[in-house]
Amino acid sequence: MTGQPIGTGPQAISWEDLARTAAALDGIAVRTPLVESAALTRRFGNPVWLKCEQHQPIGAFKIRGAYTAMSRLSPKERARGIITHSSGNHGQAVAFAARHFGVRAVIVMPKSAPAVKVEGIRRHGAEIVFTTPKEREACAEELIQREGLVLVPPYDNIDVIMGQGTCAFEILEDHPEIETIICPIGGGGMLAGTCAAVAAMAGARADGTSRSVHAVEPEVSPKLTAALAAGHPVPFEPVDTLADGLVPPATGALTLSYIRPVIAGVATLTEAEIGAGVRFLFHSMALKVEPSGATPVGALLAGKIRPTGPTALILTGGNVDPAVFARLVA
Amino acid sequence: MTGQPIGTGPQAISWEDLARTAAALDGIAVRTPLVESAALTRRFGNPVWLKCEQHQPIGAFKIRGAYTAMSRLSPKERARGIITHSSGNHGQAVAFAARHFGVRAVIVMPKSAPAVKVEGIRRHGAEIVFTTPKEREACAEELIQREGLVLVPPYDNIDVIMGQGTCAFEILEDHPEIETIICPIGGGGMLAGTCAAVAAMAGARADGTSRSVHAVEPEVSPKLTAALAAGHPVPFEPVDTLADGLVPPATGALTLSYIRPVIAGVATLTEAEIGAGVRFLFHSMALKVEPSGATPVGALLAGKIRPTGPTALILTGGNVDPAVFARLVA
Repeated sequence: MTGQPIGTGPQAISWEDLARTAAALDGIAVRTPLVESAALTRRFGNPVWLKCEQHQPIGAFKIRGAYTAMSRLSPKERARGIITHSSGNHGQAVAFAARHFGVRAVIVMPKSAPAVKVEGIRRHGAEIVFTTPKEREACAEELIQREGLVLVPPYDNIDVIMGQGTCAFEILEDHPEIETIICPIGGGGMLAGTCAAVAAMAGARADGTSRSVHAVEPEVSPKLTAALAAGHPVPFEPVDTLADGLVPPATGALTLSYIRPVIAGVATLTEAEIGAGVRFLFHSMALKVEPSGATPVGALLAGKIRPTGPTALILTGGNVDPAVFARLVA
Repeated sequence: MTGQPIGTGPQAISWEDLARTAAALDGIAVRTPLVESAALTRRFGNPVWLKCEQHQPIGAFKIRGAYTAMSRLSPKERARGIITHSSGNHGQAVAFAARHFGVRAVIVMPKSAPAVKVEGIRRHGAEIVFTTPKEREACAEELIQREGLVLVPPYDNIDVIMGQGTCAFEILEDHPEIETIICPIGGGGMLAGTCAAVAAMAGARADGTSRSVHAVEPEVSPKLTAALAAGHPVPFEPVDTLADGLVPPATGALTLSYIRPVIAGVATLTEAEIGAGVRFLFHSMALKVEPSGATPVGALLAGKIRPTGPTALILTGGNVDPAVFARLVA
């Protein structure tokens, strides 16, 4: 039962690929729960489920992709040490996985990253190199040249995308009746994996259900909207937004190749709409979700996405600075 | 496949009773997720699962028992209107279920109840009568006499106990390998239902697994500890505690009859230990849990219960005043 290959990217992803990747994550990542929000179900007249990636060991989904990519390096490559650049959650994931494999990890991150994410990385024993958001890729490149480290990129990598795709794989295994999946987009790793999983399931299990994937991004940095209009990634200047996990320099080129053939729509949210998602999840569902991760709820509440049928919202993480969080939910 | 009857109470509870009760709750209560805490699993060397009752529509498990009891009244009885006395969550549950059935609900509650619980009750359209904690039962009795209302007690009632027992029923259905269940105790409805479920499963499925149930109560009001020593409920004066859901006047006599034959131990927690549970769940698991509901985690962290084998902690609810919560997690 091999799924239909998808994407114009260099490698197709099948339902079997995702099953194998998910099995390899057992004991590393958590099979996170899909929790029904009674309040959202009532409001939309269809079951609305929350995929709670904030329950992952590092508090975000990134462990799926980082571990998958690192597990597919040779032991010799891993032993050279791993490097990455990240606004935070991917850095934590690489640090976590590096400790698991017993290898060195260097994380290049912007000085502006939330303290809670910096501490998370330190806790896992990784080295941190601070730089500006604009220079982080160049800074990582220099360290790769100088110290022989191996790059595990935050999103534009087939193994990272396949790892993130296990999230939607679990959603569709648990609730195959789901028709709409809503997912935040930064660089596009999770969204690409989600699109790949939906397409792979359509190929592997012709169950007659038509499924759509919607993306959500901050209005101040609408990278996917711009990329879909242009047909290629469009670079954006770094900006301040509550959704600090959704502002890499651009959507990835590889991720875009998985996203374009599948995506049904993109919602852009104001800062107030992003905050409303965080507030709702805390007060209605007793969940702490970081602003980036709460954007699918914000999009529903703002009426910017109208879901069809049973719906799953991917809550991507929970790592938010306590002071920011306290202000949002007050 | 009828389970072994348990308890010296007036009515035995079988595995089939629980299955039937759980099925009747479908669409009213949520089948809450059992989420693994990677941090607690690492710390104790055995899987530690969190049963997230804070995700129930009213933010607490009480909907299970209140709805079950009200569904078993005759339509004529229900039409007379329902009354109860409650520190809050049971009141919300009765208000929620009364609206479902389209009948009047009157909630007698202490003036000291958290505002968040009072608002929850008002939102469901119930009438509230404020009194002192000591007089709430007498006050309810007077209204029953005068207005012909039907009492749905907060815990000491077979249908309420059976409803709460569906929580442990779900735990054991989802993860039959679980050996230890830890549960907060106030009046004892949830704990009695949990003990009944563990005993009923032992009767119905002789799977050779030995299971134990542990209770947790605040040190300032150790009602179960006292009741187990005395062999009968022991009344306690109302006191201030973070665990405001765990200070009814005494353990129930009926609940005690289900608890005594099964319970393995009772931990009493200081206020600091209760707060530590809330803090851990927020920072490690991104969950908002009220102090009463976080006591099983507090007991583990304080080393007051040493779990054997795979363990489930029942997090009973998430309704906590925002200011109290903010102070606890700061």
